[in-house]
Amino acid sequence: MYGKDLTVHTTTPFNAETRPDVLREHFITPRNLFFARNHGDIPQVDSDSYRLTINGMVETPLSLSLDDLRRNFPTHMLIATMVCAGNRRSELNNVTPIKNEVLWETGAVSTAEWRGVSLADVLRAVGIDASTGHVAFHGLDRIEKGGKSFNFGGSIPLDKALSSEVLLAYEMNGEPLPHEHGFPLRAVVPGYIGARSVKWLSTITIQEQPSDNYYQARAYKMFPPDVTAATVNWHDGDMLNEWCINSIISSPREGEVIHGDQVTVQGFALPGHGATITNIEVSADGGQTWQTAMLASMNVSWAWCFWEINVSLKPGENQLVVRATDSSGNRQFDNMPDLWNFKGYMNNAWHRVNVSRA
Amino acid sequence: MYGKDLTVHTTTPFNAETRPDVLREHFITPRNLFFARNHGDIPQVDSDSYRLTINGMVETPLSLSLDDLRRNFPTHMLIATMVCAGNRRSELNNVTPIKNEVLWETGAVSTAEWRGVSLADVLRAVGIDASTGHVAFHGLDRIEKGGKSFNFGGSIPLDKALSSEVLLAYEMNGEPLPHEHGFPLRAVVPGYIGARSVKWLSTITIQEQPSDNYYQARAYKMFPPDVTAATVNWHDGDMLNEWCINSIISSPREGEVIHGDQVTVQGFALPGHGATITNIEVSADGGQTWQTAMLASMNVSWAWCFWEINVSLKPGENQLVVRATDSSGNRQFDNMPDLWNFKGYMNNAWHRVNVSRA
Repeated sequence: MYGKDLTVHTTTPFNAETRPDVLREHFITPRNLFFARNHGDIPQVDSDSYRLTINGMVETPLSLSLDDLRRNFPTHMLIATMVCAGNRRSELNNVTPIKNEVLWETGAVSTAEWRGVSLADVLRAVGIDASTGHVAFHGLDRIEKGGKSFNFGGSIPLDKALSSEVLLAYEMNGEPLPHEHGFPLRAVVPGYIGARSVKWLSTITIQEQPSDNYYQARAYKMFPPDVTAATVNWHDGDMLNEWCINSIISSPREGEVIHGDQVTVQGFALPGHGATITNIEVSADGGQTWQTAMLASMNVSWAWCFWEINVSLKPGENQLVVRATDSSGNRQFDNMPDLWNFKGYMNNAWHRVNVSRA
Repeated sequence: MYGKDLTVHTTTPFNAETRPDVLREHFITPRNLFFARNHGDIPQVDSDSYRLTINGMVETPLSLSLDDLRRNFPTHMLIATMVCAGNRRSELNNVTPIKNEVLWETGAVSTAEWRGVSLADVLRAVGIDASTGHVAFHGLDRIEKGGKSFNFGGSIPLDKALSSEVLLAYEMNGEPLPHEHGFPLRAVVPGYIGARSVKWLSTITIQEQPSDNYYQARAYKMFPPDVTAATVNWHDGDMLNEWCINSIISSPREGEVIHGDQVTVQGFALPGHGATITNIEVSADGGQTWQTAMLASMNVSWAWCFWEINVSLKPGENQLVVRATDSSGNRQFDNMPDLWNFKGYMNNAWHRVNVSRA
């Protein structure tokens, strides 16, 4: 299923990331290069008998087949990036070790053309009285954790769920979802961490409070740098939702030897929620001086954009750095230690790559 | 190579369009569904010995291999729609017959992810002194016409060529260009009629005047409705460049019988050069009353967007109509007879589809 361009971190559950220089070759990531992030098994769902249940604070609970969804709701297409909240965890792990988490490098991010129906349309069909609340997603994947067995889940605020960009997607790049990406139906919540785009969707519940699922109530929460696994109070911490601005150098790679006094630096950048990238700067001297990189792709909300620049190298060691700014004023900072958190989420410090000039 | 979803108009040269309802299923058109428009043969080019020549009013004429292009210039990716200037010619033909032209219906339009280098970067490398002028593209495809044999060609104004969006593309949807779409290198001129995106590029010439190629100097020119093939003076007429705003109903299809009093109308719309779509209106009564359709895809410059709406039908015959507006203030009008021209280009009148309610 996956070739040499992917690093498989664990096979059960299946977690694999893609080489960033390979990712950077396609704006729409081919299906077989799309990073995989799972917490449980990969359900093999029979699409004929599949039903999506919508319940909770609704006027008319519904149970919908795939055909019901296709026939009764407008189709919607969106090019959106998916990114794991733990992407770039390995760099945080270098500051202070992080235990029991997948040590993602920079490749837990990919982009697809998603096709499905708008979650907002489905919610309007069931009738929502509430003006505030949360929309909880339940997956069919079984998690075995701490002696318990439960399904993956998470939630998003009702106002995000009622925005037109959130999809219930049944296609990825023009074909039915692959099993490992949620066949036959998944949420696609653009601008949110990947964990909220719940795969193998079984139930959508409209409720007053956020999901009490482990992956909403415990995991995917942000704690200050001084909290550790030993001291954590799980009731504290902030549930993660919106992804953060980020930028990554995809080539050259760490430790690469460059022949010549110039090198082409390439990478991608992700704007903050709903924004677009406005500036990407690259340094060849560890962050002392900066040059503006050139955009090398389209630049739209909900998706990454590609950038490139040629920089001069001095003899010996050189540290390449990238940082981005977006249309909402979000910036990246040189604050890796302050970003450290014991679960290793949301690392968006300046990204550094060390190369040597031969 | 092509399945039942394509209508092949001519095999030599190869001209085929795609069913609009099939096109509407993918924002990025799969390669095997992309419409094909050719005037000559389909060259089989050896990519190793291939060279692109850049000459004319330049400081340093260059001959570049594909590797030279890949190595010496930043890569750029763009999602852009390609549309034939003759799309929807068949409707003009119904007003007054049009001879010796392919009678395209609504499917000579498709969208791809193009990857290549920026033409502007290549032009900067050869050094351009001129502030005005034209950039002429020469293709490797041989045309046999009127007892003569020549290559396809065309040109674009220098200021368009120096904009960052014009590509010299070597990939389409993440793979090398297919032979029928210009392998190994083609121009991609977003916002311009497809004819300017010259395939199998051999030479780029910077010159004072537009190309004198048949397909710039004679074909792809717009003449008033009273000019015919018998009365035309080829020195008159306006060379076509920028495409025009357009919108098309992809389903239901002409003559379809609808069971029930409601029908879902779907389609796509193309904004004018550099603009984005701001409004799409649909009528179910031949254009007397209108409702605003819902966007069903992303909405960006250089590409189509998808739309959808449910409308009520009266018993018997109903005429569905669509019209669009864009951010530059471009609109479509109910002006099919005025749009008529003997070559059958640029039909962007309101698009009408007749259906009957059973």
